[in-house]
Amino acid sequence: MNGFLGELMGTMILIVLGTGCGAAVNLKRNYAHGSNWLFITIAWGLAVTFGVYVAGSVGSQGHLNPAVTIALAVFGKFPSSQVLPYLAGQFLGAFIGAVIVAIHYYPQFKETKSDEGNNVGIFTTGPAIKNNLFNFLSEFIGTFIFIFSLLNLGDFTQGLKPLIVGLLIMVIGQTLGGTTGFALNPARDFAPRLAYAILPIPNKGLANWSYAWVPILGPICGGLLAVFLKTLI
Amino acid sequence: MNGFLGELMGTMILIVLGTGCGAAVNLKRNYAHGSNWLFITIAWGLAVTFGVYVAGSVGSQGHLNPAVTIALAVFGKFPSSQVLPYLAGQFLGAFIGAVIVAIHYYPQFKETKSDEGNNVGIFTTGPAIKNNLFNFLSEFIGTFIFIFSLLNLGDFTQGLKPLIVGLLIMVIGQTLGGTTGFALNPARDFAPRLAYAILPIPNKGLANWSYAWVPILGPICGGLLAVFLKTLI
Amino acid sequence: MNGFLGELMGTMILIVLGTGCGAAVNLKRNYAHGSNWLFITIAWGLAVTFGVYVAGSVGSQGHLNPAVTIALAVFGKFPSSQVLPYLAGQFLGAFIGAVIVAIHYYPQFKETKSDEGNNVGIFTTGPAIKNNLFNFLSEFIGTFIFIFSLLNLGDFTQGLKPLIVGLLIMVIGQTLGGTTGFALNPARDFAPRLAYAILPIPNKGLANWSYAWVPILGPICGGLLAVFLKTLI
Amino acid sequence: MNGFLGELMGTMILIVLGTGCGAAVNLKRNYAHGSNWLFITIAWGLAVTFGVYVAGSVGSQGHLNPAVTIALAVFGKFPSSQVLPYLAGQFLGAFIGAVIVAIHYYPQFKETKSDEGNNVGIFTTGPAIKNNLFNFLSEFIGTFIFIFSLLNLGDFTQGLKPLIVGLLIMVIGQTLGGTTGFALNPARDFAPRLAYAILPIPNKGLANWSYAWVPILGPICGGLLAVFLKTLI
Repeated sequence: MNGFLGELMGTMILIVLGTGCGAAVNLKRNYAHGSNWLFITIAWGLAVTFGVYVAGSVGSQGHLNPAVTIALAVFGKFPSSQVLPYLAGQFLGAFIGAVIVAIHYYPQFKETKSDEGNNVGIFTTGPAIKNNLFNFLSEFIGTFIFIFSLLNLGDFTQGLKPLIVGLLIMVIGQTLGGTTGFALNPARDFAPRLAYAILPIPNKGLANWSYAWVPILGPICGGLLAVFLKTLI
Repeated sequence: MNGFLGELMGTMILIVLGTGCGAAVNLKRNYAHGSNWLFITIAWGLAVTFGVYVAGSVGSQGHLNPAVTIALAVFGKFPSSQVLPYLAGQFLGAFIGAVIVAIHYYPQFKETKSDEGNNVGIFTTGPAIKNNLFNFLSEFIGTFIFIFSLLNLGDFTQGLKPLIVGLLIMVIGQTLGGTTGFALNPARDFAPRLAYAILPIPNKGLANWSYAWVPILGPICGGLLAVFLKTLI
Repeated sequence: MNGFLGELMGTMILIVLGTGCGAAVNLKRNYAHGSNWLFITIAWGLAVTFGVYVAGSVGSQGHLNPAVTIALAVFGKFPSSQVLPYLAGQFLGAFIGAVIVAIHYYPQFKETKSDEGNNVGIFTTGPAIKNNLFNFLSEFIGTFIFIFSLLNLGDFTQGLKPLIVGLLIMVIGQTLGGTTGFALNPARDFAPRLAYAILPIPNKGLANWSYAWVPILGPICGGLLAVFLKTLI
Repeated sequence: MNGFLGELMGTMILIVLGTGCGAAVNLKRNYAHGSNWLFITIAWGLAVTFGVYVAGSVGSQGHLNPAVTIALAVFGKFPSSQVLPYLAGQFLGAFIGAVIVAIHYYPQFKETKSDEGNNVGIFTTGPAIKNNLFNFLSEFIGTFIFIFSLLNLGDFTQGLKPLIVGLLIMVIGQTLGGTTGFALNPARDFAPRLAYAILPIPNKGLANWSYAWVPILGPICGGLLAVFLKTLI
């Protein structure tokens, strides 16, 4: 039960802070409106940091990310019986996180029109240049670099290591994330997209479902390569 | 006695640096004038970091925040005999901190008119969109996320954990703080507001007392939920 | 073999993130386009941090830099038999990293003309004011300060020390790096320059080979002085 | 001898990076030109971090600051026989650091006219509003907050504590430093001012000696109050 609860609470924290950043930067009439890419990458990095702290303290391994869970399980480094509870916690936690952000910024959603920044990009990722192959490659490469580095950090829920994981997300966002918005994580993209699609958010636009497969498949493939390579060296 | 003194000195440091940031960003003719939201959230985060270091070293648990003290006491995790000394130290320390900032920036207060940034927002928080219900919810949600995460950090006055607490405040300020200015702490808002109201600060405006209940009640309720949830899982 | 592999993987991570930052800042139609010098120095700092983590975990000493390897070997602090494997890993890893960045940003390279930022500066360093003597001195001084400080950090691959190494690179980039772009590392400059010269990158310009000796010789000389001084005190 | 050498090397590193930041921000035709106050405070903070690492490793207590050394000695917490070697190392190291920056940025000094930013503010501090009493109070308050907090950090040369010291300088610079430029340290201000006055720097202006007493006396008095208060609680 702790695995499920840990992933649920941790991913909830991750998505409250992460998509909270999306709302903060995009929605009018809040003090963080218009902040830049550095701001966004710092916030997402620290969102992961505190998600990992909470998950690790509640009792999971702090994956918060199906691409991590699946890849570790495929290569026998994570018990397959725990895969479903982990994935369920991740998607449910991300969904709850998105709901909290929709409540938190409700007056700002009401004040911001769709063409002024009130769009699905608050909750999910999307490409700067639409190109199926290279958008997939961006998420594949970014997640490979992320998870391969992560696997070289040791037990990353202990001590100050969650901060290092956050800085890893931050620097990948800075250096490789500008092409697709660095999902790197199927739950981080899919669950908030679903929340955006079904919640009664004022002025909302389309959920851009046609792109949703990229931040699911890209990260899963990148994670598989990373764990495979780590088993070799 | 150490608990009172620790909270007093720690909250004084927190408020000198925190409202010092408010003065730095808002008042003309100082080198930090006009700095952005990232700057503000970094400064408030590190203000908490060093407040916690000082409080922990002098001898308190480094709450610096009545919402933490009250919630822990209600759920039996903090001795009730220490509640009053802690709260007294927090409010008194915050008041002294605000006085120091008023002295430090006296020439800048004199040079800045009320409509140029010399207003109560230097010392206290206020909503970007005035809405009693959602302003309360913002402080409630932000403080819940803060204190629930805090309770999963272990003993946060030791080693480098005060830095992690500061980064937690920073990221909440970045991602959830743009709606109301992230008080998250009744002492942090009330005592500097009182100082602003009664000190002879040049060009000063109104203290906006009608809003003062929000950053008191919101954080206390958020803290209660956070500690309650932590007792469950 | 671990030394070669560690340096290869670590330098690959360093250059993926570092020249990834160059692409992010310079190429149009990605979300990080136009970010400032602070952004660049943070990214390069963290690029080094995660390069060191990966190298140390795979099994090398995390030099990632011929100027470090050569200087330590000259003064008998590194086995000479390992010099060639280390240098080979560093140059090969840096080359592979540059290739990954060229793929990752391929659509952005196609969209950005040479005079709009698509130039060798994405991959390599170059002087703000061309002056052979002072450009050499800048790289000499910057690398001396870097490696002398590094030698006073203890075993920098352990615990959180890789973060400190990254912050060291960051602050040198902030304070001394604006003159030549802080190569501080022959492999970091030469291998991506070679990759830029021979890869089929769209819209690419000249590789500026006439400058290439400065970020090779300057760092090597600065490293030698640093290790020599450290042996004295 | 180690105390003198440690303070000399540490203060040299501090001033190379710190006044290097001044040159970087103020002088034309380098990539960091025009960076903001956040950039400056980060750089000065990390300058202190690496100064402390180097000083502590070479063998001193990492004061790097006569206001720390004098106040500790006055209250019997530092051997009086070491005061002169420490002060000598601090002033000499700061002077050497300023010389290195003058060489490093020589082409930029040549390209930048006095009214374009090539002035003593690169090397030293100065008030945003000239007012002897309040400028003194600013340095007094800032240094008191700095040294009182520092005394509550434990042995600050060990582990990752030098980073915490750097963050302390950074946040004081952000929140209290905009009034006078946060010298907080007599050696940091006096020795680079002397270097600026006597070195053949192209296009240089006046050294503003009439202000030089403020960043000497203010920090010394602030340090005395901080150590005195720490002995009480």
